[in-house]
Amino acid sequence: MQPPYDLVIANGRLSADCALGYVAIQGGLVAALGPMAEMPAGAVIIDAAGCLVMPGFVNCHNHAAMTLFRGLADDLPLMQWLTDHVFPAEARFVSPEMVYWCSKLAAAEMLLSGTTTVADGYFYEEQAAQAFADAGIRAVAAQGVIDFPAPGVADPAENINVARRFVTAWQGKSPLVTPAIFCHSPYTCRRETLVAAKQAAQEAGVPLFLHVAETAGEVAESRKQVGRTPMGYLHELGILDRDTVCVHGVWLSEADMDILAASGSPVVVCPESNMKLAAGIAPLPELLERGIGVGIGTDGCASNNNLDFLGEVARCALLHKGTRLDPTVLPAARLLTLAAEDGAACLGFGGQLGRLAPGYFADLIIVDLAHPRLTPFYGLATIIYAGAASQVRDVIVGGQVVVRERRCLTLDLAEVQARVREMAEQVKAGGGAPFPIAMETRNAGDEGDGVIEKGISAGPSRENPPA
Amino acid sequence: MQPPYDLVIANGRLSADCALGYVAIQGGLVAALGPMAEMPAGAVIIDAAGCLVMPGFVNCHNHAAMTLFRGLADDLPLMQWLTDHVFPAEARFVSPEMVYWCSKLAAAEMLLSGTTTVADGYFYEEQAAQAFADAGIRAVAAQGVIDFPAPGVADPAENINVARRFVTAWQGKSPLVTPAIFCHSPYTCRRETLVAAKQAAQEAGVPLFLHVAETAGEVAESRKQVGRTPMGYLHELGILDRDTVCVHGVWLSEADMDILAASGSPVVVCPESNMKLAAGIAPLPELLERGIGVGIGTDGCASNNNLDFLGEVARCALLHKGTRLDPTVLPAARLLTLAAEDGAACLGFGGQLGRLAPGYFADLIIVDLAHPRLTPFYGLATIIYAGAASQVRDVIVGGQVVVRERRCLTLDLAEVQARVREMAEQVKAGGGAPFPIAMETRNAGDEGDGVIEKGISAGPSRENPPA
Repeated sequence: MQPPYDLVIANGRLSADCALGYVAIQGGLVAALGPMAEMPAGAVIIDAAGCLVMPGFVNCHNHAAMTLFRGLADDLPLMQWLTDHVFPAEARFVSPEMVYWCSKLAAAEMLLSGTTTVADGYFYEEQAAQAFADAGIRAVAAQGVIDFPAPGVADPAENINVARRFVTAWQGKSPLVTPAIFCHSPYTCRRETLVAAKQAAQEAGVPLFLHVAETAGEVAESRKQVGRTPMGYLHELGILDRDTVCVHGVWLSEADMDILAASGSPVVVCPESNMKLAAGIAPLPELLERGIGVGIGTDGCASNNNLDFLGEVARCALLHKGTRLDPTVLPAARLLTLAAEDGAACLGFGGQLGRLAPGYFADLIIVDLAHPRLTPFYGLATIIYAGAASQVRDVIVGGQVVVRERRCLTLDLAEVQARVREMAEQVKAGGGAPFPIAMETRNAGDEGDGVIEKGISAGPSRENPPA
Repeated sequence: MQPPYDLVIANGRLSADCALGYVAIQGGLVAALGPMAEMPAGAVIIDAAGCLVMPGFVNCHNHAAMTLFRGLADDLPLMQWLTDHVFPAEARFVSPEMVYWCSKLAAAEMLLSGTTTVADGYFYEEQAAQAFADAGIRAVAAQGVIDFPAPGVADPAENINVARRFVTAWQGKSPLVTPAIFCHSPYTCRRETLVAAKQAAQEAGVPLFLHVAETAGEVAESRKQVGRTPMGYLHELGILDRDTVCVHGVWLSEADMDILAASGSPVVVCPESNMKLAAGIAPLPELLERGIGVGIGTDGCASNNNLDFLGEVARCALLHKGTRLDPTVLPAARLLTLAAEDGAACLGFGGQLGRLAPGYFADLIIVDLAHPRLTPFYGLATIIYAGAASQVRDVIVGGQVVVRERRCLTLDLAEVQARVREMAEQVKAGGGAPFPIAMETRNAGDEGDGVIEKGISAGPSRENPPA
């Protein structure tokens, strides 16, 4: 790669040491970077004076289309939240059109707040994948698999086939989208389904995601049903390896963490979702101590209720410091690598994504340091502890400028919002035709013997034990 | 009050029920509000179409001037943070000029994020008061009292006199500033000082603030020194009443809470500061259950590190839901009243401030609902769980428009930032003349027998036990 480059960012403080420098981009990759005195010629120059240039955030868990249900019901016991609000709304309103527009809204929210890669899981995932490709956000888009009738998968016996077809259709289709499979959980998928999903993912060379050990109730139920923790059960099935991503991991035993460390399976923690729904607190420092791969995810907007990744990271840090009475836990520098490089490795992009370094994807954000909340600016910790999503000025994904001066260049935001608001009006009115679908099931914590489910679901999963 | 009014806000969703309406302002107060069909004539109209109109936030604890030390040192054990970083910096750099400009920067950050009232405590508080008056933010500005040499109070024997003179000078001086006294804490002030400070506050009819029961170590030390908890000790001194505000209240026994309930003393919780410095988690739900007055505060920028009150409220809610495994704790509607009306009552503004209602101060914010993160908008909970400070578009304090279209009208932000950045350069260079001063002392949690102190301090407080 020789100058002139496709794009050069000039005069920014580069995140490695906050010194002024340039970043040259070519072919979607960071080609070179260095001090301003050595800046090469570039066809296009973005002036980043007064700004920090850093890797974009990697949001390792989302159900993007659930923006439609943001704030539909909050502060409720899980069962009431689900049965009275989320289930009926999802049963009526999940459609290909809904997944496209609501995922696109999520993409806009993520890009504008500095997220350049998202791992998503939902149904009609081809619509989500298309929305991500159109919006210009890098995505690992995973088709949901569950042993209930689901949107676009009326017959659960077809769930693996649908997922395979999705993966085949999207492999190589967009440079930004990696297809994958999201097996909902060990308590909503039978043993055969879990194994077949892993096999399908393995054959295609794509990641498999699962929700695992989110609530105490889920673990208790698993012990009752299969005599093992969810992690122990997945290990027994032989489906844990570097390409199987376990989402949540709130309730993990020492033995569970040994399994994770030995298998190489990464864990994605979702602190805000887990706090808001009162699932608990994942043992993030212990996971890191054991060298287990960790990424951070926002989860979907029904349970967070935003996709502000910087806020997620800061809350994650404060939560662990505060509950452990130790201010040294999760220092800012570690949080910054968790937010990008570690997350990238979880998603299979190790060595390619999440660093401001030559040869890495040019997935970068330019953060405006001019705001009072970033004044003074002694160093990078201020981004974590005082920064705000709104200070993300420009966003570049794969060398393409997708946000410039806080405006999304890749989509018509007014149109996207208008489409989602129209759907929200219908949700408020409670209309639409009910559809018997199932997704996002979740065990109860201390909610008695009922099985709590988050998101689309046809009924209690205990009627469909995992084995 | 008759039309035409001084100012009319039109077409906004009013926070009571999110219905479209107008708010008419006259003489610094809300004069009338109602549906658009009944909107009266007004000299000036602000169009709030697509926005929510709600009471401004009441930040019940800050050390505004400490913006200078934002991000100077993070993630450190308290003792190291203080002795190696905060003490030396404060000893060298606190001056009248520093307090003025750094408090003004804090005022800008607060106004831009929707805080319309702040309770502050520091030294050279006349400079902070002037900065708040100039910036147009409502303030309870409290002069610090401590039994060590402090900035502007070289002789601790003069500390009460200095505070009295400050209160006298500022009573009636600005319609926005209420002077007050901040007795640092029961462990840095002698018995006589605490009693004299309360007497001075009482005589002037102004609030007294104290840091109380912030760390486990402080409580243990108090039991050792005076045979009582800090709250028990203050009760014995007879200085707890409705006008004595206890800040932090992290480590409270049942008996302490009984004392608070009986005395009417309100408690200000500072969840982010307490998490970041690993002090612990205040028993907010228990305080509310007992009917104890509660406000929320950000604390200063050395320990938070931002003044984003909306973020503070959201983190407060998630923290309690997550650690108690109960999603119903602190529902959004309760958080919204805590953020304004309850805080106002803590500061002595009960019945005057914190509601969008006729006769109340016209301290209002107009929140732009157009951002993706607020889409869709089913109701007020979305402000708490998905809102962002950056969505505050306009801010009105006492009927004066102080922020319009996200710009502070009352100050030259570039000038303020330039002044603070200049000082920050000196802080980084480590220059300046050391000055033996003391403020913000803090007991160790599990740091051994040392006394941990936050902010300015001349030495370990255990050499100066409180009784």
